Formats: sequence, C-alpha cells, structure tokens
Amino acid sequence: MDEFAFIDWIRRQTALEGDRIAVGPGDDCAVMRIGGELLLVTTDQCADGVHFVLDACGGEAAGYKVMARSLSDIAAMAGEPLAAVATVAATRGMAEAQLQAIYRGLRRAGDALGCPVIGGDVAAWDHPLLLTVTMLGKPAGEAPLLRSGAKVGDAVCVTGELGGSLESGRHLNFTPRIAEARELITQADVHAMIDISDGLAADLGHLCRAGGVGAELDAGAIPLSAAARQGHDPLSAALGDGEDYELLFTLTDDDARNLVTNQPLPVPVSRIGRITAADSMTLIGPDGKVVPIDQCGWRHRT
Amino acid sequence: MDEFAFIDWIRRQTALEGDRIAVGPGDDCAVMRIGGELLLVTTDQCADGVHFVLDACGGEAAGYKVMARSLSDIAAMAGEPLAAVATVAATRGMAEAQLQAIYRGLRRAGDALGCPVIGGDVAAWDHPLLLTVTMLGKPAGEAPLLRSGAKVGDAVCVTGELGGSLESGRHLNFTPRIAEARELITQADVHAMIDISDGLAADLGHLCRAGGVGAELDAGAIPLSAAARQGHDPLSAALGDGEDYELLFTLTDDDARNLVTNQPLPVPVSRIGRITAADSMTLIGPDGKVVPIDQCGWRHRT
Repeated sequence: MDEFAFIDWIRRQTALEGDRIAVGPGDDCAVMRIGGELLLVTTDQCADGVHFVLDACGGEAAGYKVMARSLSDIAAMAGEPLAAVATVAATRGMAEAQLQAIYRGLRRAGDALGCPVIGGDVAAWDHPLLLTVTMLGKPAGEAPLLRSGAKVGDAVCVTGELGGSLESGRHLNFTPRIAEARELITQADVHAMIDISDGLAADLGHLCRAGGVGAELDAGAIPLSAAARQGHDPLSAALGDGEDYELLFTLTDDDARNLVTNQPLPVPVSRIGRITAADSMTLIGPDGKVVPIDQCGWRHRT
Repeated sequence: MDEFAFIDWIRRQTALEGDRIAVGPGDDCAVMRIGGELLLVTTDQCADGVHFVLDACGGEAAGYKVMARSLSDIAAMAGEPLAAVATVAATRGMAEAQLQAIYRGLRRAGDALGCPVIGGDVAAWDHPLLLTVTMLGKPAGEAPLLRSGAKVGDAVCVTGELGGSLESGRHLNFTPRIAEARELITQADVHAMIDISDGLAADLGHLCRAGGVGAELDAGAIPLSAAARQGHDPLSAALGDGEDYELLFTLTDDDARNLVTNQPLPVPVSRIGRITAADSMTLIGPDGKVVPIDQCGWRHRT
C-alpha cells in the first residue's frame, strides 16, 4: 500500500469542491463553508509502535503527540485551532491511569494553543494503542493558505532546524507552529505552505506537485538540528527524517530577504532555495554539484 | 477500563460550555458555534475483530459501518450530515483493492445521505484494520436536540425493531435514521433522543442519567426483530444486544399516541414505556411482574 498513491486515487473519485466544500482531500486540512465562515478540518492518527512506543514514552506523550500533529496541520494553513475530538483504541485491560495520562497529554497540547477536546470515543481491543484526533480551525483570512500557491521564482523558506527528530525525542514534544504561522502571514504574503511531517524532500515534493512547479535547494542553507549534526549524514537526516513539524513555505524573494534579515518570528527562518519551472527538484551541494532530489529515496533511506 | 466511567471522568475535568462550545463531551455529538450557526461534531471508530470481521465481511462493509455509525449519531440529534473525514490504520501489505473497497463503503453510506468524505489519513501498521470517522452536521433547529431533555411523564418511543443485529448481519448494513429523525421533529415536540448503539437498556440508561429521571418499560411493547425472535431469549436480545441504530426518544404521552396511531415515519414507531421520577429503570413483564433493569447486566450478558 502506498499512502500517497491511495490519496491520489481518492482525489480522482470525485470533484467535491462546491458550495459547502472549499477544499477537499489532499491539503493539510479540508476547508468547509459554515454559516458564512470558512472552517478547517484535519484528522490524524498515532499508533503504538509506529508513531510512539508506549512502554517507553507513556500515555501522556502519546496523547500530546497526536494532538500536536493536528495542531501542526492547522498551523500549515496559518489557522487558529478551535476544538478537537479524539478516539482511543486501547489495549484491553489498559489501566485507568494510562487513559487519564493520554487525556492529559491531549489537553497539554490543546490547552497551550486554546484548543479544547470537546468529544471522543473510547474502545477496547486486543491490539496496541491507536489514537486519532480530528481538529477544527479557523483559517487565516478570506482565502485559505494552501500548498498549491507556489510561484516560479519564489524563495523557499523553513522555520527552525531539521532532522534527527526521532533520535532527539523532539517528535514527542515539539511545539506546533501555530503562533509562528499567524505572525508570519502578518509579515509577508506567503504563497504556499505545508508542515514538514514526512520530511523536507517529501513535503517539498507535495508542495511542488500541488503547485505544478519544481524546486532547487541549497544544501548549505538547510538548517540542521543538533541531533542531525550528531549523525553520520546530517544533510540526509534533514532532507529525509521527517517529523520536524516545522513550516515550509514560499514567498517572493524580496519578502524572504526581509524575513531572514529581520527574523520577526519566535523561531529562526532560513531561506533554503527557490521555486523553478522544472518538473523536478534538485539540490545544489556545497561543492556546487547539482543532484536530483528523489523524495521517495530520502523518505525510505532509514 | 470502563468506557463510561472514563467519559464521566473526562466530563469532570473541565466545564467547556461557553461562547464557542454549546455542548461538550457526553452527548451523541458535541455542538459548536461557528459563524452564527451551530455545528454538530461526532467521532467514532470500528476495529477488525471488534466491530466487524474483515475476512468475513470485506472492506466495503467495514467502511460502510464506520460511516453509518457516525451518521446514526447525527440522526440522534435530528441533524443533517454535512461532511466527514476518515482515518484508516491498515495492516501492512493490505491490498490496494481492499483500501479502495473501504473507501467505496464510506462513500456508499455517505452518498445516500448527502455526506461527502472531505479528508482523511492512511497509515500502515502490523495490526488489524482500524477505521475512524469524524462527521460534521447541522442541527435540527435553534437549539440542539439532546439526550438530557426527558420529562417525568413522557412516553418512551423507539423506531424499528430491536435485537439480534449481530446475528442477522444488520449491524453491517443498517440505514442510519437521518430522514426518520428529521421527519419526526416536524411531527412532534421531541424532548430527548439518543440512538441505540450500546443496547436499549444501556442507552435508555444514558438518556435517564442525562435527564436525571428514571423509566419504566412495558416488556410486551418492545418491538422484537425477527433475529431476536429466533433466539432463545428475544426480550433480553432486544434490551441488551445493541447495534440496532434505531432512535430512542421521549415526548408527551399525547404526542406519542398520535405518532403511534398515524405512523408518519418511513419506519414503525413503538411506544414502549414512560419516564418516571425514580432514580432507576424497571421493566413490567408480560406477567405484570416488575423487575429492575440493570443496564450493565444486559450489556454484559452475552
């Protein structure tokens, strides 16, 4: 099963966009029209053994992560979270205290960003813990900020530092970039945005495909996390590890220069490349060599 | 782990109701205020081996069921479904055709009632299939129809026939009572409503606890499904089996008499008892004997 192929298949099944649905499957959030307002809707899941290891991290961290992932999807559209619902498929016999810890984790992530948990469902089964969160949010402005708006010549920017999120444990306690995204759109006219969950190469690929553009990254400009720098291949870690939950966005070169000079966000912004008319992505190495970025290659490297 | 005790615990953690949240955890749907309108939000999950057996029923039936369960929650508030998102935790290596069948099942349930699937998430893991659906809906009127409005002296009514849903396979292909609920509220002033998923005894218990009332059922008036009648204890099946996805509601005795006489809904309505001031539920048997209804007793009987 290939998740991306399956989502592409779903997108081909029907044209949903109309009076009620402004944006259907395929972006970080779907967008609905309710009572004259736009509503962001996103859903995500975290499974024991895939997205966290319950025995190692405990229920609180698991609950935090699944809620924070949805918050990161809301941030990717520069939205404001409104409320969330959660499901818990708990291993039969799971202690009440563990369930309460999961709930406290959901609440810790949500409370920090004004997003209450307003409902949910709990079921028991004989398999590992699986959590889901569906979150509703309010978009930034009249039109939602999508993945698809990148323009040829745009600068490609990223918040924070990339790579090594699993090794450092950051994937369990990252801060969703809600405040940063909302500040960002007051500072610049952002054309396209996505959060980095699959990895810089893969998510840049999503952004390029959605916009029908290509991209060229400067290897030396990609901000490497301490964890990535400690590994044997820091650049590959930054390109491929994923779960950074940083913002990847495009805007005019002038806007990008201002942003990088003034650094108005609580987190550093780096300008790491540019949008091209090509149907591909490339990386300019420190030696000036140009190599193709295979989004899947990096994704499956580890 | 006791699901109901855990949900009670969650409810005690915070008072959510305010400007944005009209109804928090504990009813069939949460209710939000968006752009001057009310929005219903409900989430539910279906797991292989718990809510369906994938090898026996296939992905299409599994997808149908998880979507139909959420539609039934929207029906319980006499709402109109607007859109849904879904997650799929698929067993690693699951065939693309099976995933497509799941999606077709989601669509079959949603398309029949005008509810598109606008987003979702797909992940692979080494354990059985787990599906979730989160659905948004529009409530019936100015105030949402809740579980909690039952008044002492109300008649207790139910749509359709109860019991034996697992044996008959009805739990995989039931019709959510969306149209019936919306017709119902044009015919009568319904005070409280819930859908029967846990079982008549358990769901009547939820309704009574939410309203601070008791109830008395007439055993002979409870409509028994053909599957229940074929079993060794039809009445216990109707009280305890669950997964009927019929509507259980209360209204004045006069309204109930009119409803039962005129039968204006596409599905039969039965008057099965009355709401009392007691702190308990009882059943008047065919022999006139009064026995207490232990909601959990019936629930765990099988």
